[in-house]
Amino acid sequence: MNCQGLWGTSASLALRLGQAIFSTASLLFMCLDVEFYSYTAFCFLVTIMGLVIPWSLTLALMDAYSVFFKRPSRQPGVMSVIVVGDWVLSFLSLAAASSTASVTDILITSHSCRAKLCSRYQLSAAVTFLSWFLSLASSLFNLWLLPSL
Amino acid sequence: MNCQGLWGTSASLALRLGQAIFSTASLLFMCLDVEFYSYTAFCFLVTIMGLVIPWSLTLALMDAYSVFFKRPSRQPGVMSVIVVGDWVLSFLSLAAASSTASVTDILITSHSCRAKLCSRYQLSAAVTFLSWFLSLASSLFNLWLLPSL
Repeated sequence: MNCQGLWGTSASLALRLGQAIFSTASLLFMCLDVEFYSYTAFCFLVTIMGLVIPWSLTLALMDAYSVFFKRPSRQPGVMSVIVVGDWVLSFLSLAAASSTASVTDILITSHSCRAKLCSRYQLSAAVTFLSWFLSLASSLFNLWLLPSL
Repeated sequence: MNCQGLWGTSASLALRLGQAIFSTASLLFMCLDVEFYSYTAFCFLVTIMGLVIPWSLTLALMDAYSVFFKRPSRQPGVMSVIVVGDWVLSFLSLAAASSTASVTDILITSHSCRAKLCSRYQLSAAVTFLSWFLSLASSLFNLWLLPSL
């Protein structure tokens, strides 16, 4: 079984790169200013993105290695760790994205953020949702693989 | 295969009843006052709980029927609908719970909610997290059943 999207294929590599790019973008939009430090939700987002970025970069490197050099080795133990890790990180990303979106909404309604800052927060929330979606897709693809191992 | 937690067993009935109770409690904590109407995150929570309550009550009734009267009929089509529905509702509950929690946090920090109201919002968020957790458990149990059908 080697359909696209599974661990070790080029589609999976693309998913991982997408996750890394979107989560880095989210972190940058949030951190170009130090004001995020005063809101719990934004600190949560920064923490989670700090976990997602190394995770997706590592898996992207391993995917790239198996795409370009050899067939991937899919041991059930390793696959379980990857599926559970993706799973937990996708839940955490969703929680961070929705917290950020709702706090930004409150800040906009109460006119308590400076010009351009609120739109950066909005962009950050949107990009985090994209990263959540890609991470969920990776997780579902690999979950499908588990019973066949 | 008839292990506990799967569709049509008493453990599944207990999970469904727990979901219904927690989501009703969350709705009540939020709606005893009409002030929730001014925050997008709280409106979102009320909408999602309005979807989760009838869904879990219906499935609890169907579970009770198969527990007390006959063995459950597990057709792949019906099971897929149940798994996907649980899935989507669990993501939506998580998003609603984390939005509510972060908005409540902001309100408490800025001292902009009246006495006792903030603690009600906090309770509502906590109970929504519990409902999300039970709904995720149901969904995982039933997902495990799918490949064997």
